[in-house]
Amino acid sequence: MNYSVILGNLGNTRDRFLSSGYKDERPADEMFRQAVSIPGVSGIELVGVWDISASNAKSMGKLLRESGTKLVSIIPEHFSSKLWARGAFTSRDPAIRRAAVAHTKEMIDILVELGGELINLWPGQDGYDYLLQGNFDEAYAWLVEGIREVADYRPDVRISLEFKPKEPRNFSYMARSADTLLIALETGRRNVGVTIDTGHALVGGENLGEAAFRLLKSGKLFHLHFNDNHQGWDDDMIVGSVHTLQYIELFFWLRKLGYSGWWSMDQYPYREDGREALAQSIAWIDALLAKLDAYGMDALDKVMRRGEATEITRELRRLLLG
Amino acid sequence: MNYSVILGNLGNTRDRFLSSGYKDERPADEMFRQAVSIPGVSGIELVGVWDISASNAKSMGKLLRESGTKLVSIIPEHFSSKLWARGAFTSRDPAIRRAAVAHTKEMIDILVELGGELINLWPGQDGYDYLLQGNFDEAYAWLVEGIREVADYRPDVRISLEFKPKEPRNFSYMARSADTLLIALETGRRNVGVTIDTGHALVGGENLGEAAFRLLKSGKLFHLHFNDNHQGWDDDMIVGSVHTLQYIELFFWLRKLGYSGWWSMDQYPYREDGREALAQSIAWIDALLAKLDAYGMDALDKVMRRGEATEITRELRRLLLG
Amino acid sequence: MNYSVILGNLGNTRDRFLSSGYKDERPADEMFRQAVSIPGVSGIELVGVWDISASNAKSMGKLLRESGTKLVSIIPEHFSSKLWARGAFTSRDPAIRRAAVAHTKEMIDILVELGGELINLWPGQDGYDYLLQGNFDEAYAWLVEGIREVADYRPDVRISLEFKPKEPRNFSYMARSADTLLIALETGRRNVGVTIDTGHALVGGENLGEAAFRLLKSGKLFHLHFNDNHQGWDDDMIVGSVHTLQYIELFFWLRKLGYSGWWSMDQYPYREDGREALAQSIAWIDALLAKLDAYGMDALDKVMRRGEATEITRELRRLLLG
Amino acid sequence: MNYSVILGNLGNTRDRFLSSGYKDERPADEMFRQAVSIPGVSGIELVGVWDISASNAKSMGKLLRESGTKLVSIIPEHFSSKLWARGAFTSRDPAIRRAAVAHTKEMIDILVELGGELINLWPGQDGYDYLLQGNFDEAYAWLVEGIREVADYRPDVRISLEFKPKEPRNFSYMARSADTLLIALETGRRNVGVTIDTGHALVGGENLGEAAFRLLKSGKLFHLHFNDNHQGWDDDMIVGSVHTLQYIELFFWLRKLGYSGWWSMDQYPYREDGREALAQSIAWIDALLAKLDAYGMDALDKVMRRGEATEITRELRRLLLG
Repeated sequence: MNYSVILGNLGNTRDRFLSSGYKDERPADEMFRQAVSIPGVSGIELVGVWDISASNAKSMGKLLRESGTKLVSIIPEHFSSKLWARGAFTSRDPAIRRAAVAHTKEMIDILVELGGELINLWPGQDGYDYLLQGNFDEAYAWLVEGIREVADYRPDVRISLEFKPKEPRNFSYMARSADTLLIALETGRRNVGVTIDTGHALVGGENLGEAAFRLLKSGKLFHLHFNDNHQGWDDDMIVGSVHTLQYIELFFWLRKLGYSGWWSMDQYPYREDGREALAQSIAWIDALLAKLDAYGMDALDKVMRRGEATEITRELRRLLLG
Repeated sequence: MNYSVILGNLGNTRDRFLSSGYKDERPADEMFRQAVSIPGVSGIELVGVWDISASNAKSMGKLLRESGTKLVSIIPEHFSSKLWARGAFTSRDPAIRRAAVAHTKEMIDILVELGGELINLWPGQDGYDYLLQGNFDEAYAWLVEGIREVADYRPDVRISLEFKPKEPRNFSYMARSADTLLIALETGRRNVGVTIDTGHALVGGENLGEAAFRLLKSGKLFHLHFNDNHQGWDDDMIVGSVHTLQYIELFFWLRKLGYSGWWSMDQYPYREDGREALAQSIAWIDALLAKLDAYGMDALDKVMRRGEATEITRELRRLLLG
Repeated sequence: MNYSVILGNLGNTRDRFLSSGYKDERPADEMFRQAVSIPGVSGIELVGVWDISASNAKSMGKLLRESGTKLVSIIPEHFSSKLWARGAFTSRDPAIRRAAVAHTKEMIDILVELGGELINLWPGQDGYDYLLQGNFDEAYAWLVEGIREVADYRPDVRISLEFKPKEPRNFSYMARSADTLLIALETGRRNVGVTIDTGHALVGGENLGEAAFRLLKSGKLFHLHFNDNHQGWDDDMIVGSVHTLQYIELFFWLRKLGYSGWWSMDQYPYREDGREALAQSIAWIDALLAKLDAYGMDALDKVMRRGEATEITRELRRLLLG
Repeated sequence: MNYSVILGNLGNTRDRFLSSGYKDERPADEMFRQAVSIPGVSGIELVGVWDISASNAKSMGKLLRESGTKLVSIIPEHFSSKLWARGAFTSRDPAIRRAAVAHTKEMIDILVELGGELINLWPGQDGYDYLLQGNFDEAYAWLVEGIREVADYRPDVRISLEFKPKEPRNFSYMARSADTLLIALETGRRNVGVTIDTGHALVGGENLGEAAFRLLKSGKLFHLHFNDNHQGWDDDMIVGSVHTLQYIELFFWLRKLGYSGWWSMDQYPYREDGREALAQSIAWIDALLAKLDAYGMDALDKVMRRGEATEITRELRRLLLG
């Protein structure tokens, strides 16, 4: 498997009550060394400005080369500064919309320089909070326009749109797999696709396997972020700590339809050791994949084809527990 | 306003515990007369087999003509007989898939004969219950294929797909506005669109105004079903009994983008007088529309454009409470 | 383990759309024979009127004796006839409230005659649908009064209150473990306790292990109903078909605090073979308990005591997957 | 009405993505002056350490006296420093548990000195995140023990427990009205009661009027925090911006059962002007109360008593819209 992690997962964790953080600030290179020391990890994702900018691109490039680590994506910073408080690509202020595009292009340049091929776009502030606050006609048009512009800037770089139903806005414009696929299709750009963050999909009431199928069928599943939650909120927990069989179905469809991208860990280990939390996620995925392989894709395909619930339940138990 | 009701709303109501029903069975013509006696109602929707079939098409036509009532839609019966227990358009049995198409064509014939122009397609059994039970690759293909076939049967008849996240299946293939729009677009047929049932959209975590915008922008909002609920389940309650401002936003976008279809009441008044429950819904919609008109579409548009939450909240209070 | 099943789980299944049922009606003695043929099943629960009444008590007694089956509970019928449509113990009509008590007493008499010791009380119609419809002051007083009366009728018979957040009412008066424990305590009767239906607890947003702890600590966990769901609704699925680790935590606390009652299967296998669906649930519970035992209660207790999330996640993976 | 606000609502707002805040830091006295300038506000709540400590008690006392403002409560700081990251009253570390009690006592002393009578206790870190992480037996015992100790420190000071289903922990030990009432009752102390935060109750799936009834009937509704949300999460929005009729039912029961405490605004206006957001909440409550009064408590009581859904819906429309 191509496992990667998001660098910031190893850093400090905050919430609105404890804004100084549950942990301490840590230097990027220390986080980097921890990340690549996790068994199985061969790639890394960086958040713009936080982890990567013009000023540290060279030193980051050195870290990547020396450790033989692939730069899996850059996630431009469209969610953590006041500038974007009321939207980035959908800000009512045209200067801010231009800044959102400009920052993305800057990140594309750095990405290419560092050998990366995918921008993971999560414009978390692009949404609305109050009823009657959403200017849907303008906002969706601006969003599509901005994505087109960054997609056209370097057609060899893939732009992968990460959806999430809410947080930091009460309603996000890219909320679930289907509405985000619609946006990707509307751009009319081949290099625009969609990222599934498993936790975001669960919050949106989606069945993971079905969301993956929808995007794979359209050739638009560009990237995967993994984490777990109790379903009502983006708890960003260790993979496998809450859900079990849902992942089996997801992995089944990923394999069946030949997903060849990265499996990236994206957690928020508020009170846990970051490295260990990420390592546990990969260990869970490995263990579940081993169970799936031992059972056999073809055998499971046959069970799925028949669709008999009692047989499925029996076979999933055999697959999982022996 | 073009208000209509679904005839069956006036009949007996059942649930899985009280399957004989909370009320008594009633003759269709009595239900019909009650329906058209509701102030404001000028159209009716009929459920296939339950309310309308080849055998009673003539007598129904007479009722429609004599009362000057428009046949707003026929809803083919794809959810209430054992035949469809494991799917209609997506049944693993090709004979059942053919039957789903054939029944729809039969309903189209009757619809046209009775002067109707829209089929409201709610294949409620098309979905799955258990993890690994969904054969997504086959099921979605069969669904699109079946819809194409009924759409091509009479291109002058509009086929409007009604989505719902769950019930009677734990997961429906047409679950929310965006995934159903994707299906409609995939058919490639101009006469295929989408119905918003307000309650279904709320269960799916959608903001009503945004769901309507998405479909109107694409020219695909063909029909509207109205009811209310407490958000977690399709309670099918009286419009306005739970939500208030959400409807204002919905009405705003319907008016702004020129929705010209029917506003149809679709409730399930388990323990209430059916006629009165439907009448109350229309009275609520009328009252909220009157408030919106009194405030003014242009004035509200300006408030929405600015997007300032405190101003919006103040103005919505003025709009609603004076 | 003391496994039991609810007899009706083997019968026809209905919903509001397919009220004649997904299956056929079947004679009670056939259902009974199927039930007791499920490996591990040594007890049965009967629903009043549906399965048991004065008229068939003798023949049911014969079935119980001949098969060596324990009558685990009778569930009085307070949810499936028009009489209770607007409440049983909380009906605004005093005659109906008296009828709810009288029917329960009648079931108590039959229970004792057949060697049972527990009444599982699920007054599903005791709740409300609309805002401002609940007469909380009267309703809660009537509910407590009615429960006291049936508890005092035979103090040697245990009355176990089954909670559920909603369905068939939009809000139930006994909704979650804590509010129902409050009601049990308010009755002041030692023979009044609470039933956890695992699916109902999940719908209510409860963590199963914590709900069990709350009731066990108070000596009030009288009974357990098992089923699974996707969390938003009482899907009444096969145990283990959706959740996995949640059951491990539940079983841990049941064992740790010495729950000695029955483990009863309560499903609604709409489209599945009833016997097989129940058998699969027991097989899942058996398999998960075997994993728990193999790992060791003491070892898991130590992990829980330390409360380190990454350790817990690692150890639960070891417990489950080896 | 006795309206109050929480001082911090006027300050900076943060989330886990934008930890430096959507606004700027502001001096406490400026926030204070803004708070008391909101029409209708005559009381204030202070968060321990943030707003009030031994070092500024005198200057705060001066602000209170000079402005004629009542100190409605102090909310001890049990949620926003690393010390409490894994629990305050339920920390596995006895020194931290003692610190939680000690800090509360210190706040009680200051409260009394400044003429206050109520401590609003929200130990937000007392809960757990992962399955099998909760040491329920110890945690609940420690929680009750700690509350008893602070309640006994000054029996003339009321300790009001604020519940919330989740955040900052995935599961809180005090999650909903009923479980928190159980804890309050278990302390056996007359001066321990419960705070309803309307948003927390909505997230927990509670009907506001019923939660208030439950606590009022037991004499345990000590305090009220007001805000609104879209139901799935504690969005902390302006009152009346999402829900409407739910407040009418709440106000009905508050008036009917004679709630005489404070109506305190507790919002988190991420992107809004704090003063204006609080002012809008009070304006909404005033407007809805005026509608309720104009309709008449007795008239609404009669409608509620009859419990006819169609009548209720009609009368609530009349009440609201005229």
